[in-house]
Amino acid sequence: MPRRFSASEYIDGILAGNRVLLSRAITLVESTLPSDQALAQQVLDAVLPHAGRSVRVGITGVPGVGKSTFIEALGLHLVRERGHHLAVLAVDPTSQRSGGSILGDKTRMNELAAHPRAFIRPSPAGRSLGGVTRSTREALVLCEAAGHDVIFVETVGVGQSETAVHGMVDFFLLLMLAGAGDELQGIKKGIMEMADAITITKADGGNELAARRARAEYQNALHLFPLAPSQWSPEVTISSALTGQGVPEVWQVLEKYVAQTQENGYFAQRRQEQNLHWLHETIRQSLEAQFYARPAVRERLAAVEQAVREGRQSAFGAAGELLEL
Amino acid sequence: MPRRFSASEYIDGILAGNRVLLSRAITLVESTLPSDQALAQQVLDAVLPHAGRSVRVGITGVPGVGKSTFIEALGLHLVRERGHHLAVLAVDPTSQRSGGSILGDKTRMNELAAHPRAFIRPSPAGRSLGGVTRSTREALVLCEAAGHDVIFVETVGVGQSETAVHGMVDFFLLLMLAGAGDELQGIKKGIMEMADAITITKADGGNELAARRARAEYQNALHLFPLAPSQWSPEVTISSALTGQGVPEVWQVLEKYVAQTQENGYFAQRRQEQNLHWLHETIRQSLEAQFYARPAVRERLAAVEQAVREGRQSAFGAAGELLEL
Repeated sequence: MPRRFSASEYIDGILAGNRVLLSRAITLVESTLPSDQALAQQVLDAVLPHAGRSVRVGITGVPGVGKSTFIEALGLHLVRERGHHLAVLAVDPTSQRSGGSILGDKTRMNELAAHPRAFIRPSPAGRSLGGVTRSTREALVLCEAAGHDVIFVETVGVGQSETAVHGMVDFFLLLMLAGAGDELQGIKKGIMEMADAITITKADGGNELAARRARAEYQNALHLFPLAPSQWSPEVTISSALTGQGVPEVWQVLEKYVAQTQENGYFAQRRQEQNLHWLHETIRQSLEAQFYARPAVRERLAAVEQAVREGRQSAFGAAGELLEL
Repeated sequence: MPRRFSASEYIDGILAGNRVLLSRAITLVESTLPSDQALAQQVLDAVLPHAGRSVRVGITGVPGVGKSTFIEALGLHLVRERGHHLAVLAVDPTSQRSGGSILGDKTRMNELAAHPRAFIRPSPAGRSLGGVTRSTREALVLCEAAGHDVIFVETVGVGQSETAVHGMVDFFLLLMLAGAGDELQGIKKGIMEMADAITITKADGGNELAARRARAEYQNALHLFPLAPSQWSPEVTISSALTGQGVPEVWQVLEKYVAQTQENGYFAQRRQEQNLHWLHETIRQSLEAQFYARPAVRERLAAVEQAVREGRQSAFGAAGELLEL
């Protein structure tokens, strides 16, 4: 383990846009050591006034949809053509530091990773969803304080992570494949209804016609959904990371969304609600962690769970029994 | 307040199908008095082995969709034509004992309420969503133990209650109006994706053509959704509580669902998961209730929430501050 920096070294480094110190500070927020956590909290509180000035974009889609290549294509467009400073984070509770996690294999985003205005960070390994979510949200704040004005939060589209990511971003983009059949079955229920935009990927060559057809179908289906509190109607586009066609259009949809929701006040309101939500969520996680770590609870839990699962004991009676321990 | 019965009077009464004692036992589980809660727990644990043998059906739809008349029509079909014992419960955290809650005005289900095999119970008043959900789930167990083999849990389709109800039922039915425009805007995002069946209501007279068109549209839209873990494809029907047309068909869809999910094991598996979920949910609610009731927390909470909402303090720092109090 390299030497720890002091709080002011981290803070000054981050605010100066120093990538090494940003990276090390993220390692700090990912650490479960109490002393690291205390230092991380000091750094976070100091840089907080400099955070918040970015567009936060959640991006999801099942494996095989071409997420990495799409993110690289859109990311390169943003850093090269539009001068944005981009940070790409990931929420993937299943990832292992050594394994094949999204973003773990940075070679899949070779060009983007090498760009001076791009910062790519894989999902923290070996943590629960709650842990990953928490440290990703803190990493997001650090990246903003370091001057990144666009944050992508990538997730894998097959689990609970999407709801967590939806709760920390301004805009949620869903990548889908043409051929509305078996390929889509991997996307979990509820994810489609969270999308502010859908882009049908791999719309090139012989695939393009099917992609256009899929766009029409999804656009119709989305019209049946109720209007979101943002008053925004989700848009469906087609794009190809291979040819680059349709990639800038996805960003135009996002800019339209941001303009509209900043105008009607929803953008700021949603951020406030997210902040408040995270306060109560953090409290809940801490209370539960403390409770389930009690030795008496750990000893009885498995037997009580089994009795409740099989209907031999009521959930309420069993909860009371554990709470009294 | 009428006199309290003893635990064995409640238990014997419920198991004998005595409606007065069933009703009084539900009042007991709704009570927030510690002595009532202890007695309720005794009764619940004793009748639990006799519960569980019913089909639990969540029914939702926005105000104006004709929920009460539909429930009465379907309910009368079940008790008159098919010999079922039906209990209708409601989850409506906004209801007031005196106000116009769903089911509060029983006159809207006159005929059903008068039938000897039907039992109708309004939503408990003046409670939080967590409180209403808990007591409704306990009431459901009592109704089953009293011999009701079909339980409807009604909810109002505009808030968070639907997720809670979805977590306590086997089958979720969404009522919708034809005219996929403004009328639907009241349904919250995510509810459509929870539906195992949709019925387009008021499909009579001049409305029938529009209803048929809406059915086709929703059926197409639902096909774009991923297949649920139940392997069930949601079905869309049209119905009229006025003419009775299409009402028995809704029940046929449900019976097909039950047969399929009992066959593939999902029905039992889902009930086990729901039991386990309720155990952890009950623990969470108790931990949070205890925490937020602490005088020191109550004193600081509003100021901390305001600072977090405005981004002056990080959610994590603020949570730490409150947890240390």
